Parts: sequence; C-alpha cells; structure tokens
Amino acid sequence: MTPVEAVNGRTYLDNTRKLVDELLEKYLPSEKTEPQSLHIAMRYSVMAGGKRIRPVLAIAAYEYCGGDSRKAATTVHPAMAALEIVHTYSLIHDDLPCMDDDDLRRGRPTCHRKFGEAMAVLAGDALHVIAFRLMAGTGSIDAVIELAEAVGTSGMLGGQVADLEAEGINASRKDVINIHSRKTGALIRGSVRIGALLAGADEATLDRLTAYGEKVGLAFQIIDDILDIKGNQETLGKKTGSDSKKHKATYPGVVSLQQARQDAAALIDEALGVFEDYDDSILKYIARYIGQREN
Amino acid sequence: MTPVEAVNGRTYLDNTRKLVDELLEKYLPSEKTEPQSLHIAMRYSVMAGGKRIRPVLAIAAYEYCGGDSRKAATTVHPAMAALEIVHTYSLIHDDLPCMDDDDLRRGRPTCHRKFGEAMAVLAGDALHVIAFRLMAGTGSIDAVIELAEAVGTSGMLGGQVADLEAEGINASRKDVINIHSRKTGALIRGSVRIGALLAGADEATLDRLTAYGEKVGLAFQIIDDILDIKGNQETLGKKTGSDSKKHKATYPGVVSLQQARQDAAALIDEALGVFEDYDDSILKYIARYIGQREN
Repeated sequence: MTPVEAVNGRTYLDNTRKLVDELLEKYLPSEKTEPQSLHIAMRYSVMAGGKRIRPVLAIAAYEYCGGDSRKAATTVHPAMAALEIVHTYSLIHDDLPCMDDDDLRRGRPTCHRKFGEAMAVLAGDALHVIAFRLMAGTGSIDAVIELAEAVGTSGMLGGQVADLEAEGINASRKDVINIHSRKTGALIRGSVRIGALLAGADEATLDRLTAYGEKVGLAFQIIDDILDIKGNQETLGKKTGSDSKKHKATYPGVVSLQQARQDAAALIDEALGVFEDYDDSILKYIARYIGQREN
Repeated sequence: MTPVEAVNGRTYLDNTRKLVDELLEKYLPSEKTEPQSLHIAMRYSVMAGGKRIRPVLAIAAYEYCGGDSRKAATTVHPAMAALEIVHTYSLIHDDLPCMDDDDLRRGRPTCHRKFGEAMAVLAGDALHVIAFRLMAGTGSIDAVIELAEAVGTSGMLGGQVADLEAEGINASRKDVINIHSRKTGALIRGSVRIGALLAGADEATLDRLTAYGEKVGLAFQIIDDILDIKGNQETLGKKTGSDSKKHKATYPGVVSLQQARQDAAALIDEALGVFEDYDDSILKYIARYIGQREN
C-alpha cells in the first residue's frame, strides 16, 4: 500500500476502534444496573480491548456499499456492538475449564478466573442475548438471520465442536480449513455481510464482499495460529504455544510455518482481487492489515 | 371448570403438545447433519419431553387474539419451537456442575452427564442461537425483541443470577417473588406476549394478556417449589427435595406450604380475572391447569 493509504487506513482503524468502545459503553448495561455482578463480569470481558476487527469490517462494508451515514446510528452502529459482543461471548465460553481452560485473555485473567465458572457461563449467555437484542434494534430481520447463521451450528459453534473433536487427532489441511472457516471465518464473513445488508447492497456487491469476508476470515485465523507459535505473549495478551500444548489442529501444524505464511498472503491477495485496482477502499487496507498483524 | 371445559382443554393440551413435538422435530437439525455430536446432544435434551407450557401459551394467546390460522405455520409455529428451545438451553446450562449440578432431568441423565460438560455448554449455546433464528423466521422484529427481553439480564438471566446469589441467604418473600418473576415468569409472560404480538393484538388486549402471563408465570414457579417438596420423583422426572438441599430461596421456604398453595391459587384467580366470565378461552383452562398440575 502507498504511505498515504497506510496513514489514512491507520487513522480509520484508530477512529473506528474508539467508536466501537463508545458504542459498547453505550449499549452494555451499566455496572450499577441490576444484576450488578453479572453486568460487571460482562463489561470486564467486553471492555478489555481487542482488535475490534468484526465491527470495523461491518462499518467499512456499510460505507463501501454506500450506506447512509445519517442512518448509521440506528443501523450499523448497534450491529457493530452486537458483533463484538457475540465474539466476546464465544471467547468467554471457549476459555472455560471444560473447553480450552485458558487463564489469560487480552492480558487479564479470563472471565471464569476472575468471577468464577457459573458467572462466566451466565455472562457469556447474557452477551449472546444482548447481541441479538442489538441486532434486532437495527430493524433488519435479514441482519438478525445473518448473525444467527454466522454463530450457529453451521458456523461458529460448528467450528468450535470440530475444533474440540480434532484435538489430538491427525487433522489434514482440509480439516483445518474446514474448522477455521467456521470457527472464526463465519463471523468475520457475517460481519462484512451484515454491514453490506444494512446498506442495502445489491446481490452482485454482496457476493463479492462475501468472497472477501471468507478470504480474510480464513487468513485471520491462519495468522492467529502463526502468532500462537511465533508471537510475543505480551503483545498478544494471551499465552503463546497453547495450541500445540493442547494438541489443537492448527494450520502451521499441517503445513510448514513458511507455507502457512504464503497461504495467508495468497488469501489476502484473493480478497483484494474482488476490488478493482482503482477502487480506493478501506476494506483493501483492512485486508492488508490482517495479513500483516502482529497481535 | 365444567366437565366439558376440562375435556376440551385436555384435548387441546394433548393435541398442541403433539404439534410442538412435530415442530421441534421439523426445526431442529437432524442427528445426521454435521456437527452430528452437537445435534445429537441438542435433540437429546429438547426431545426429552416436558410440559411444553411456553409454546402452548403462545399459540393459545395467538388464537385468543384472532391470529390467522392460515399464517400460523410461518409465524406462531416457529415461535413456539423457539420458546421451547430457549427454555431447554436454560435448563442445560442451569444443570451444569458449576451451576445447580443436577444429574437428572425429565427422567434422564442431564445433558452434561450424558455428553460431557463441553458439549453441554455448546449444546445450550446452539439452542440459544436456533431460538433466535426461528424467532427471526416469523418476520417480526417485535417478536425477536420480546424474546431477547424475556431471556436477558432483566428477565430470565437476571433471575438465574439472583437465584444463585440467594443460595444460603435468608431471602424474604419479596426477594423470592423477584427471583421467580424473572427466572421463570419472564419467559412465560414473553410466550403469551409473543403469541399476541404475532396475532397483531391491540394494546389493551396485549396489556391484559401481559398481566395474565405474569400471574401464571409466578404461580407456575411457586407450584414448582411446592412440587419439589411434596412431589413424586417419578412423576416429576427429577430429584425432589433438591431446592432445600441446595439452600435455594423458595416460596414455601419463606411462607408456609399452606400459604404458598393459597398464594398460587390467588394468582391463578387473578390471571382468570383478566377475562370476562363469558369468555370461553383456552387460556383460562391453561391457568387452571397450571394451578392444579402435579408434575
């Protein structure tokens, strides 16, 4: 990317992340609202930061498809919060002792380490509902259905099950792509599609952006696997090397690390391929950012 | 009730329960759909039977409000399945070792006893999503919002937290009413309201049925508490006496058993009070049935 693109893109990411934090602050029940203990646990996990890539993709897609900025506050904004919130619910449940049994997330103790298992189960459940409540607030049944499909048994939850069942088994490259496409890819793809749907995108644009979402979604998880091997625990805010310790099916585990890097780069190129060369889209910047991220 | 009412009501209940089972069979992914292990666990819990009182209330309210029977298959039917499914998700998570730690539900091992904790967490999550997917399938954003409010932190989940936090504490009658109204009452009230909303009920009717739903919802849980003390384990399909063993806040625990029976009966009378005497409604039969149930 050109230096100008890089600067504009970085500013866009920074500003959008601030917006995401404001939206989450606004839409999550306050710590003083009953039941306080539950709302404190929910906020603890959601407000712990993170890359906020799903809401960023949703609004970038909304804008790319010509979504009305005057309607953003009642359409794509609640959707952005819903996407980050549903992602956080999945992390909380994924971290539970009976699942991945993780102690650290985003540089802090995981929800169940901080508040106990019962509260973590309930906080995840409560975030799950709030996500649907917010998505319904957009007034778009299509967006609600899209969210449900993305996180349901043919999407994210199906991927989580396949991920658990692949532990300790000799998975193939095809198996890992299948797991990653659902576990992480489906919600990333869904985020792009929801932004486009709320903007009233035509079929052809929706199809192109769906392909984009699939490619960056899979690339995102391959790079997550690479960072779990090569990344810095401090930058990542979670323990590295944990995939291998748990005998998880990872992409670099079935091809070489170098091949994994090449395949991620190829996926990013394919994602960029859905745009015309002159198309100066923030979605192009985000694809490159995902390809180069270090946390 | 007159003998004729009782026979008609009993037939209505039996037929509607059959319909509910058919709808659940139709809407839940089959055991042969990937991920099979997850779908098997989901079906195990949903198809274990139960009183199906929430979908029964939804369709009875739909019919009471003059809902079009020709549109039932695309409106109230998916809503009925959604209500039973969301209820089942809450039972699965409630039964987890970190929550109520129950071994028996509807006469069978609980989901985590049968399939393990990780699968039970995921099966609950997956049923939670499917409920929203089905409710969105009605095309009514209002119904989706109603479901989210009923099971969210100001409804069912708030009640679950309060219930956990009240264990071993000297709760007052007011505390218990507060817990029961949210933990059980909110979804029962929501079921009645969703049926009415899908039928296009006017404000006044919706208000009356909301009051009805609140009364029968609270009565339902008070009778649950009574049955936990006096009921027969075989008829109930779950262990009796478990509330007291866990030092749960129960209604008969804060007033006498006799007073609890009287208060439940009074609530049923109040629920019946929203109807005119000549109003020959199945909702009246269901209120009486809830007041007299033995499982």
